[in-house]
Amino acid sequence: MGSIGEAIDINMEILEAIEDNYGGVTVNMKKEEPMDSNKFHTMLRTSISQWRLLGKKGVWIKLPIELAHLVDAAVKEGFWYHHAEATYLMLVYWIPREIPHTIPANASHRVGIGAFVLNNDGQVLVVKEKWGKNTGTWKLPTGVVDEGEDICTAAVREVQEETGLETEFVELLAFRQSHKSFFGKSDLFFICMLKPLNFTIQKQDSEIEDAKWMAIEEYAGQPKLNQSELSKTIAKICVAKKEKQYTGFSALPTTTGHSSKKSYIYSNI
Amino acid sequence: MGSIGEAIDINMEILEAIEDNYGGVTVNMKKEEPMDSNKFHTMLRTSISQWRLLGKKGVWIKLPIELAHLVDAAVKEGFWYHHAEATYLMLVYWIPREIPHTIPANASHRVGIGAFVLNNDGQVLVVKEKWGKNTGTWKLPTGVVDEGEDICTAAVREVQEETGLETEFVELLAFRQSHKSFFGKSDLFFICMLKPLNFTIQKQDSEIEDAKWMAIEEYAGQPKLNQSELSKTIAKICVAKKEKQYTGFSALPTTTGHSSKKSYIYSNI
Repeated sequence: MGSIGEAIDINMEILEAIEDNYGGVTVNMKKEEPMDSNKFHTMLRTSISQWRLLGKKGVWIKLPIELAHLVDAAVKEGFWYHHAEATYLMLVYWIPREIPHTIPANASHRVGIGAFVLNNDGQVLVVKEKWGKNTGTWKLPTGVVDEGEDICTAAVREVQEETGLETEFVELLAFRQSHKSFFGKSDLFFICMLKPLNFTIQKQDSEIEDAKWMAIEEYAGQPKLNQSELSKTIAKICVAKKEKQYTGFSALPTTTGHSSKKSYIYSNI
Repeated sequence: MGSIGEAIDINMEILEAIEDNYGGVTVNMKKEEPMDSNKFHTMLRTSISQWRLLGKKGVWIKLPIELAHLVDAAVKEGFWYHHAEATYLMLVYWIPREIPHTIPANASHRVGIGAFVLNNDGQVLVVKEKWGKNTGTWKLPTGVVDEGEDICTAAVREVQEETGLETEFVELLAFRQSHKSFFGKSDLFFICMLKPLNFTIQKQDSEIEDAKWMAIEEYAGQPKLNQSELSKTIAKICVAKKEKQYTGFSALPTTTGHSSKKSYIYSNI
């Protein structure tokens, strides 16, 4: 019944939102379009009323860090934090008062790798770190798996970065899950066996004190290493693998049916 | 040289901070102590100058959601977002201009489980979900591993929640890593074999359409399941396990040497 003029007025009061498949809407605020916090607050309130009438449930607001002055208004309106990355904050709100929310959980785990690189002489690639609690012990190269990075790729990358060696992924030998490792988050640590493709070590200087090939028995026999039940178990697995008495998981490329997204499945083939 | 009065003045200008082992400081802002954003901005600026003189590197501010009005001041001072949970936002800043920052990465992965529960008649526990893209297919019970929860515990919990069955963890059969699964985060999905301790199903109503025991060959033969390369591989592994032709990873409780924190290592024993 409204005139075009009225329709435009209504449009101006409502935040632009994208609908998702779960009855929710997402507002992607743009840093190029700065907004006064009072105006944002009014628009947000009007928008929620509108979305409520439309039967919407979850409301997501992705707020670039450049619009940090709008966080407070969203929180005052009942939004809470879902997650944040360096450049943005994701806020979320649940409209239906009668239904408990089904907002998916935030990422809960950090993922790391340890690389077991064995040469043809039965020697293992070991490093001494410059910083942290393990200085003085010869240990396997380790590192953090980046968001979007495959575990098998991360292991090869870390060895290259720390020691200059080119390697290829052979097998995943074991993994450890631990909790409260940083800021209350959990941690998964995967031991990957790699095959060296060259043998001359060029160590990285800023984090690595020293790097070398070491007889695996010498590595496994280090007293300090054996003080940790975990390190001892990992060393035992590495020795068993060297003696061909251990089978881990291989990495098989696979796809899922719906999206045909590529991923790896790790299993005993 | 200053009097006590001057010392108190200085104290009032500096935010209370805890030192960490990496040359950084953490400010835990308290929701019970609200603060004007201008005052906070001034104190933050003064504090950073002070910490710079002391040679501090990383600065962390944990800001409860009740203090959302202080986010903007921290961002204006050069802080960026590290991570957020429902109740707080963690901001971070790096003081030394000449050294690249070594701030640890945020959690990057969500972790899920699929439960392979096999009874003595060679039947597998399957469910039909009410929502999502898999309605109509009989599938293994699945769920998300909570922050701080062990994978083996999460599998037992999810089966109990979805079907009422009590089970115990037997073996981890395989896992899949995929990327960009939600908000750009990565995803790890672990297939766990469980042994049922009772057999009468009482399905959960809000998410589960139906639950039953099904001959494993019938489960693995579903046409829709076989459209997904991943589901097909998992079903094959389950069939091989039923026929005792497959070995996965067992869960061994372990501790690390430094903190004696308990955790599980998953390996082929």
